[in-house]
Amino acid sequence: MNISIHRPTFVTHLECSMTEERYEADRLHGLSRAGRPLLVRYDLAAAGAAVARDAIEARPTDLWRWRELLPVRHTASIVSLGEIETPLIPIPHSAGGNVLVKDEGRLPTGSFKARGLVMAVAMARELGVTRIAMPTNGNAGAALAAYASRCGIETIVFCPEDTPEINVREIAMQGARVWRVNGLIDDCGAIVGRGAAEGRWFDFSTLKEPYRIEGKKTMGLELAAQLGWELPDAIFYPTGGGTGLIGMWKAFDELEALGWIGPKRPRMYAVQASGCAPIVRAFEAGEEHAERWEDAHTVAAGIRVPRAVGDFLILRAVRQSGGKALGVGDPAILKAVDDCARRDGLLLCPEGGATLAAYREALRTGEVDAEERVVLFNCATGLKYPMPAAPNTLDRHAPIDFDAL
Amino acid sequence: MNISIHRPTFVTHLECSMTEERYEADRLHGLSRAGRPLLVRYDLAAAGAAVARDAIEARPTDLWRWRELLPVRHTASIVSLGEIETPLIPIPHSAGGNVLVKDEGRLPTGSFKARGLVMAVAMARELGVTRIAMPTNGNAGAALAAYASRCGIETIVFCPEDTPEINVREIAMQGARVWRVNGLIDDCGAIVGRGAAEGRWFDFSTLKEPYRIEGKKTMGLELAAQLGWELPDAIFYPTGGGTGLIGMWKAFDELEALGWIGPKRPRMYAVQASGCAPIVRAFEAGEEHAERWEDAHTVAAGIRVPRAVGDFLILRAVRQSGGKALGVGDPAILKAVDDCARRDGLLLCPEGGATLAAYREALRTGEVDAEERVVLFNCATGLKYPMPAAPNTLDRHAPIDFDAL
Ligand SMILES: Cc1ncc(COP(=O)(O)O)c(C=O)c1O
Ligand SMILES: Cc1ncc(COP(=O)(O)O)c(C=O)c1O
Repeated sequence: MNISIHRPTFVTHLECSMTEERYEADRLHGLSRAGRPLLVRYDLAAAGAAVARDAIEARPTDLWRWRELLPVRHTASIVSLGEIETPLIPIPHSAGGNVLVKDEGRLPTGSFKARGLVMAVAMARELGVTRIAMPTNGNAGAALAAYASRCGIETIVFCPEDTPEINVREIAMQGARVWRVNGLIDDCGAIVGRGAAEGRWFDFSTLKEPYRIEGKKTMGLELAAQLGWELPDAIFYPTGGGTGLIGMWKAFDELEALGWIGPKRPRMYAVQASGCAPIVRAFEAGEEHAERWEDAHTVAAGIRVPRAVGDFLILRAVRQSGGKALGVGDPAILKAVDDCARRDGLLLCPEGGATLAAYREALRTGEVDAEERVVLFNCATGLKYPMPAAPNTLDRHAPIDFDAL
Repeated sequence: MNISIHRPTFVTHLECSMTEERYEADRLHGLSRAGRPLLVRYDLAAAGAAVARDAIEARPTDLWRWRELLPVRHTASIVSLGEIETPLIPIPHSAGGNVLVKDEGRLPTGSFKARGLVMAVAMARELGVTRIAMPTNGNAGAALAAYASRCGIETIVFCPEDTPEINVREIAMQGARVWRVNGLIDDCGAIVGRGAAEGRWFDFSTLKEPYRIEGKKTMGLELAAQLGWELPDAIFYPTGGGTGLIGMWKAFDELEALGWIGPKRPRMYAVQASGCAPIVRAFEAGEEHAERWEDAHTVAAGIRVPRAVGDFLILRAVRQSGGKALGVGDPAILKAVDDCARRDGLLLCPEGGATLAAYREALRTGEVDAEERVVLFNCATGLKYPMPAAPNTLDRHAPIDFDAL
């Protein structure tokens, strides 16, 4: 499989997302000099001349079908675990006939973090990185561990002390060294930052290296292709660091530049838990940046992110799209998870449940209407989360009251 | 989506797997009068005239691309949760360059049971069933609950008392009533049988209704298509009730009858845990049937099946193929799971680990050789199972010894 093909990527350079200062491609980068995320830029005219929309449709449906819009130069750098196109699943009973869930739990390691990390690890490998550290609420660390172990890169992962047991163990099983830290994800990030400053490892925090966003971008590319190059009316995205939302927004611009879609954009709804809603607060206050959220708490661990380095990019995309940032409480999240599992047979993760809860609320307030085509992101499998519901027991040696079963 | 299309299935009849007695299609059936599984028969000449191999390849890759070889008559009967084609993943570090894992954990509810149950539930719905009961080691119950809840069929599920907590809760969350029973899966099956005899529900035990095997058959169909219509040299399958192995064997015959593959067959290796190996014992003794295995125990709960109603079908396929039934111990299973996660970044379920352990042993004894193309079945996501590996903790307020991380 991994035959080294030196192929033309269409990457021209990287660019500071704040100042637009240019950075050279094919070199290791963290944040820009302004301390902001770097965005990868492509020669889209050349990419469009090299591949047509139809040619992409004729390829196997996995993430690598989009290779002309991705940064990896050497096929040998790719470490794949089967990044399939994730299905769109209607949930008619718990949401309504026009709502589709993009079920990202089907990706390697059970979450959409695989998209970002498969790309970031490939680029790190291409650029000679041998040791990576990362703060994580669980899912990103699992994806990093899997891909990095597969290609022999050493990983050190830090997660908040109350990260679900199953996530921490998954990370450890997949060959990373993992520590629980008494604090939240940004406290973990501070430790990673200190080690990186000392040259001990490369810092893989969300948006602090430029390639995760390119992987996450494929959610937007896939969505366009799956819906016949006609984007939905609205997208509900559970927002922590916001990579996915920023990535999709970038994807739509690139698709339009290629002439593969028109100017129509979905309204982007950034969904947060009301126990940790820095983006919602900044959105409502009309701010460009979001202040740290103190005492963050929510059952949806993946979106428990008190401070996001890409805050202004999230807010910009949400506003440009005509969407909103929406907060939902834990009870509404749990109710949404429960309803969807019980009535539509689809077990969402709490973050996915948050998007369903937000959709329901938006429907109630008239922010969306039932006729609109809506996509909710379920970013991880519900199996990764502790579940309630204690089962009954039955003694097979005693008489069984069948009427009572 | 679910527009009712009355389409020609190519089903001609059902047939007793032992006596070849014919049964009418389009009617509800359990076991044959001889107490054996029924097999669905098709007019393959007509199916082959209706659709070419190339036409199938041009369709979306999900399970329904095989519709001409499946029993569902009305599209409206289908309850889908996104039955994607599962990826084939090389595991070069823990197995070798010619070994591919078919990762069935990507299916709805995280296991290959979705294949069988999506079909069986569609047929039950088509035939007017409103209440279903099932004994399960966990995964089948979860798939049943999801599909049945989605279309409003009531389900009652019984599992052994030590079924992993996560499976029992998943079943309950997805709207089934679930009981833990002090016994093994065949003890649970006895309860289901009693209720069915009293007319309380329809019995969905493995192979006791004819359509699960048709769904499981798609593993063989997909494998053929994914490998360019050239079957592998050997398949290692973790064998409990054996539906998957029997289903694939049936698929290969149907594909040959269609002229889509030649006569070459893989050697089929039925893998069991040495703590519950009735098929291995029968295979080695040259028996046609397998006696119940007493005191069954293994970490691989899915293959802890002391007695299989399709025993003779498993043994027949294994022998015809030139394969074997192989037992592996729990330590070898756990070691295989650990190696594959740590070195190849793929977290297998214990049943999947059993196939890797068996492959390694077969390589050692010369039963397979390293040049052969081999497919191992990982039938569920490793996330559904309790995991070892306790993580470390770190106090962010104390000085951090970076050298020791
Ligand atoms: C399940 C889940 N949903 C959503 C998110 C938030 O993703 P993003 O960082 O792109 O906002 C995460 C991040 O950990 C997650 O694990
Ligand atoms: C993960 C897993 N592997 C293998 C099996 C055995 O499958 P079969 O009944 O087709 O032999 C099961 C059945 O429960 C299972 O859950």
